[in-house]
Amino acid sequence: MGEIFGVVTTSDVSENVGDILKAFFSPASVAVVGASRNEKGLGHTVLKNMLEMGFPGPIYPVNPKADGLLGLKVYPDLVSIPGPVDLVVVVVPQPLVAAVLRDAVAKGAKGAVIITAGFREVGPEGLAAEKEITRIAREGGMRILGPNILGIIDTKSRLNATFAAAQPEVGDIAFVSQSGALLTAILDWAVSEQVGFSKIVSLGNKADLSEIDMFRAFRQDPDSRVVVAYLEGVTNGSEFRKAATALTKKKPLVIVKSGGTAAGSRAVSSHTGSLAGSEAAYDAAFKQSGILRAATMQDLFDISLAFAYQPLPAGKRLAIVTNAGGPGILATDACERKGLQLASFAPETIARLREHLPRAASVYNPVDVIGDAQADRYQVAIDAALADPNVNSLLVLLTPQAMTEIEKTAEVVVRAGQNGSKPVLASFMGGEAVAPGLQILREGRVPNYTFPERAVEALVAMDRYREWQLTPEEQPVEMKVDREAAAEVIRRAREAGRTALGDLEARGVMEAYGLRLPGNKLATSANEAVQFAREIGYPVVMKIVSPDILHKSDAGGVRVGVQDDAEVLAAYKAIRANALRYKRDADVWGVAVQEMVKPGREVILGVTHDPQFGHLVMFGLGGIYVEVLKDVSFRVAPLTPSQAETMVHEIRSFPLLAGVRGQPPADLAAIVDALLRVSQLVTDFPEIIELDVNPLVVNPAGGGATAVDARIILTGENH
Amino acid sequence: MGEIFGVVTTSDVSENVGDILKAFFSPASVAVVGASRNEKGLGHTVLKNMLEMGFPGPIYPVNPKADGLLGLKVYPDLVSIPGPVDLVVVVVPQPLVAAVLRDAVAKGAKGAVIITAGFREVGPEGLAAEKEITRIAREGGMRILGPNILGIIDTKSRLNATFAAAQPEVGDIAFVSQSGALLTAILDWAVSEQVGFSKIVSLGNKADLSEIDMFRAFRQDPDSRVVVAYLEGVTNGSEFRKAATALTKKKPLVIVKSGGTAAGSRAVSSHTGSLAGSEAAYDAAFKQSGILRAATMQDLFDISLAFAYQPLPAGKRLAIVTNAGGPGILATDACERKGLQLASFAPETIARLREHLPRAASVYNPVDVIGDAQADRYQVAIDAALADPNVNSLLVLLTPQAMTEIEKTAEVVVRAGQNGSKPVLASFMGGEAVAPGLQILREGRVPNYTFPERAVEALVAMDRYREWQLTPEEQPVEMKVDREAAAEVIRRAREAGRTALGDLEARGVMEAYGLRLPGNKLATSANEAVQFAREIGYPVVMKIVSPDILHKSDAGGVRVGVQDDAEVLAAYKAIRANALRYKRDADVWGVAVQEMVKPGREVILGVTHDPQFGHLVMFGLGGIYVEVLKDVSFRVAPLTPSQAETMVHEIRSFPLLAGVRGQPPADLAAIVDALLRVSQLVTDFPEIIELDVNPLVVNPAGGGATAVDARIILTGENH
Repeated sequence: MGEIFGVVTTSDVSENVGDILKAFFSPASVAVVGASRNEKGLGHTVLKNMLEMGFPGPIYPVNPKADGLLGLKVYPDLVSIPGPVDLVVVVVPQPLVAAVLRDAVAKGAKGAVIITAGFREVGPEGLAAEKEITRIAREGGMRILGPNILGIIDTKSRLNATFAAAQPEVGDIAFVSQSGALLTAILDWAVSEQVGFSKIVSLGNKADLSEIDMFRAFRQDPDSRVVVAYLEGVTNGSEFRKAATALTKKKPLVIVKSGGTAAGSRAVSSHTGSLAGSEAAYDAAFKQSGILRAATMQDLFDISLAFAYQPLPAGKRLAIVTNAGGPGILATDACERKGLQLASFAPETIARLREHLPRAASVYNPVDVIGDAQADRYQVAIDAALADPNVNSLLVLLTPQAMTEIEKTAEVVVRAGQNGSKPVLASFMGGEAVAPGLQILREGRVPNYTFPERAVEALVAMDRYREWQLTPEEQPVEMKVDREAAAEVIRRAREAGRTALGDLEARGVMEAYGLRLPGNKLATSANEAVQFAREIGYPVVMKIVSPDILHKSDAGGVRVGVQDDAEVLAAYKAIRANALRYKRDADVWGVAVQEMVKPGREVILGVTHDPQFGHLVMFGLGGIYVEVLKDVSFRVAPLTPSQAETMVHEIRSFPLLAGVRGQPPADLAAIVDALLRVSQLVTDFPEIIELDVNPLVVNPAGGGATAVDARIILTGENH
Repeated sequence: MGEIFGVVTTSDVSENVGDILKAFFSPASVAVVGASRNEKGLGHTVLKNMLEMGFPGPIYPVNPKADGLLGLKVYPDLVSIPGPVDLVVVVVPQPLVAAVLRDAVAKGAKGAVIITAGFREVGPEGLAAEKEITRIAREGGMRILGPNILGIIDTKSRLNATFAAAQPEVGDIAFVSQSGALLTAILDWAVSEQVGFSKIVSLGNKADLSEIDMFRAFRQDPDSRVVVAYLEGVTNGSEFRKAATALTKKKPLVIVKSGGTAAGSRAVSSHTGSLAGSEAAYDAAFKQSGILRAATMQDLFDISLAFAYQPLPAGKRLAIVTNAGGPGILATDACERKGLQLASFAPETIARLREHLPRAASVYNPVDVIGDAQADRYQVAIDAALADPNVNSLLVLLTPQAMTEIEKTAEVVVRAGQNGSKPVLASFMGGEAVAPGLQILREGRVPNYTFPERAVEALVAMDRYREWQLTPEEQPVEMKVDREAAAEVIRRAREAGRTALGDLEARGVMEAYGLRLPGNKLATSANEAVQFAREIGYPVVMKIVSPDILHKSDAGGVRVGVQDDAEVLAAYKAIRANALRYKRDADVWGVAVQEMVKPGREVILGVTHDPQFGHLVMFGLGGIYVEVLKDVSFRVAPLTPSQAETMVHEIRSFPLLAGVRGQPPADLAAIVDALLRVSQLVTDFPEIIELDVNPLVVNPAGGGATAVDARIILTGENH
């Protein structure tokens, strides 16, 4: 799949995560090839950054035209360097990169950070050059980061191989960015906001290493408590999911995924296809991998700071302590809007607050310590709230009023923030007056938000991550199916040069995978039709079967509610005659006699193929719910049982399935079963690129579900 | 209505807007009663603020225990002051306020800013004191701001009658806050962000003046380009709407409305009632008044800065100029998500960009001047974009890269921002590196946003406001109705002591207001029933009519599809017998013989009564769309025709009315007509507190709509 996009995927390279961590983030020695005297040049800046960050190992500048640089001896080429070189930072002009990489391989380097631009991003020639350098590295057993990147930083090992102007502080956030320029801006912003990072990686063209490798590496990195990323696209959907899922089971991963070029502009003909876009696939894949998707860069940092500084909450119940009503209401509103809960205090907490707070204070949640509160009163309220077993997290709000002790209160909040089990967040609102307090909060690892709503946003993300961590790991189940029978049908269609399976073929495949279909027999004579109708049981449906007639109704090729033998005889003749009138030379295989399915609730199952993530399964209620209200849910196949169940519950119109207006609940288990079978089918046969079961008629609970109509489209390519 | 909440409304006070502006915002002289030597005291701070702000007129401190204060002569009481006093600022303890106000009236003061707390907010005694001071002021012809407020600021007239620690800069934003503490925080924040204000008002308990008066005053205030407010509740819904609408026709009004106490906890029995909450009423009223509702305080300021600094765009088409791809994509994504459009450049623009930008640049929108762009290249791109007739607004993105000329580029953007017709916004991303640029932008009145998405948010608000300004002013239409007939029905029900109108009564009211109802006659004998059925035309529906039987079906009191004379005779007997079996002593008025309505699309019209805004009209599709999907729209009555039309189009399931799957479009005009008639009905009869037309059966376009069932509930109180 990777090659479709000209990308070399990582799955075909051995997963030496430890090696990557070591080679790129804590190399014993570094060479900067292209280090230059020109102070405006990138090569100069990279060398200077490396020195200023205080990299402890040997740093070898390489430049054939210089002797010494910034106090270091300069070497004419890599091979002339006396000691071993672990990491090579490449800042030479594009045409020289290949030669430098050959030298690097010869020198035994483990990794190369290729800052140089002018590859894939400039067109076909650049792409050829990029493939060439990738080949050199791969054959030499060396990994590449880039090309076309800002570089890489590890604050703990004091490695700064970037041309960024700002040196970030040490922190717990690992940051991966597909945009180098955005990274420059973020670094500058982070320095002034005193946001610290563990590792910073610019991905650039991802010729070799991608976000996937970084997720694997950061998973094992004790210095990174939270991983954040800005991505414009994903290299390899299934590896991405695996790596992200493994990472999120250990630490949170927050991503801003920007639109970029929508990869899926392929013309589509099914309902599923028209609803499933690249964004639906990303959303589904992110959900299934436990990734928190941030809508904006602001959210990304609001959320990651909370993860970096504070423990996860054990539940949704938030306590708020404030010295003013207004901000308390704003926070409460945000809680309600976002699905967090305000904790109900235990009676002891209320008693304790009532005892120690003035009469005008509010002892219920939000606790209002009122405008003249000093640090001691905040202390009482915070201690009481944190001690309450009904409280899972705490948000402290402060407005700078006449009596407010901003710094002392910040110290109280910092001590509370070190309780170790319940997260404490703050919103000290204001500017200069609160600035000294903010400094104390920052040093004490309590995240502060200018406005209370943003703190709530961060808590909501923490709560969602908590829920993800509680989700048991689950594998797709293996249903009992007749894979051979399905394979045979598909093989025959392929041999006949068809990509759209005929009605009977699609039915055959579905039946092989255990979906229940209406009783159905192909009659080739009127008498046979009568016999089949008796076997199936009246009333029946009769339909023309011909590869040349796709729109059966238009051709007069369908009769429903056929009641008895006489009607079957008449219908058989009429259908055949209509069909031949509709298309004179139609190849008529016969007339299908089908069971009349009892009415029930109609749902749609669909599958499309996303270029990044593969098969995307859709679920929705039939008819207008899908067509007009676009009320559908998506997951990437293969589905686990709980994912299939969540899909069913996730649609807005779910109550219609659960039963409203005295209707009995629909057989939800049968829907889940059908979803799992469809998922297994497309996973077993990747050549299926579109599938619709429309409708699946669902009976009341226990009554099962019947796939009345099915469509299957195979890829035109050979698999 | 005001009195229900213990609020004195403003509508009964003459609207002397000019006087309010003058008395409170540019008084000739000010007295500070309660000015004190105690530097920690509020009275001291207020006096100090007034002096530091540089108020040009006489300032008279009043304090019986001091002679001089901060270099000013102190007076023992108001009456001793030699010259006239326009504005009195009251900072004395609560028990002394009444006496001060009496003096103020005696002294001929026009207004009083009552900072003192301890009134309504502390309970019944405080409320009584508040009513007392309000009475004193009203009888004395003096207006009151407060009590329980931070105070009031006018930066142009150099008036600062607050105890805030920060002195805000001069600017174009008028800010009204119902929370004094929030205001304190905002002021502090605004000073460090260099956000300027024209006027700042703390509303507190709103004993007299409220946001309504401020909206009226700010409408006439040439110094305020945009009005922003933090509100927890509204004093008088209908006056609020009038004042807000008048204001928004002239300048933008952005409000954060926090939840506060939901006023409407009255038990409700109708669908409409269960869906219409206080929030739905606020949303509807805000929409109808052109108010931009900000979700968070952050949004409030992001939006108001754009209005304050830049002109309105003439359309939705945005041009983006950036020196990096990533931020450009983020901005583009935000545009798409929020309904803005990226402008398609004219061919000349593309040619011009191609001529002056390097080959690697993107000359399409977003224009990427690439990472090494200096100010001159930004200049070329900005000039070209602004000159393009397809461009309505411009967003300039900058990441601080090695070659970036931050200050010079900021100067280019500032010059562009002075073009006078197309708004220019910036997102210079970063911290210290971009800070000098931000300063230039600020001084040059180009709003800057840390992240591009926030800039887009501001542009979206500008676009919505532009659309509002284009909305023609429209009055509710007067439909021809038989008001007397409806009044008679309601009068009789009242006389009979009923608040729920009977079926026939409700039908009578609806018919009087011109809704089409099914043919319907009340038969009191079987023979009469046959006669009526023949007149109406078979088939018919028959229903028991009895004030004692509300649930007709449960009582076996309904027969549908009655086909001929014989069936009518049988049905008549059966219905009567069933009814008496159901309730032995039921007062049976007869059996209604009704037209069987042709099936059509079923919609619901409903009305509830909101304590703030009055009648709230709801619209939705019948059945599960309302019940399960909660797919409804609301507007406050009386509706204008275009509001009614928007309501119909606003629901998600609107396509079902417009016609899907080959269905003809429903008669939308008939729905709008019915909505307007219902709106007029409840406006004419305020005693109707609940109304449901469920269903209104709508025929295909031109076919009209029939109100099949109607419910009307009157208030228990006398009107």
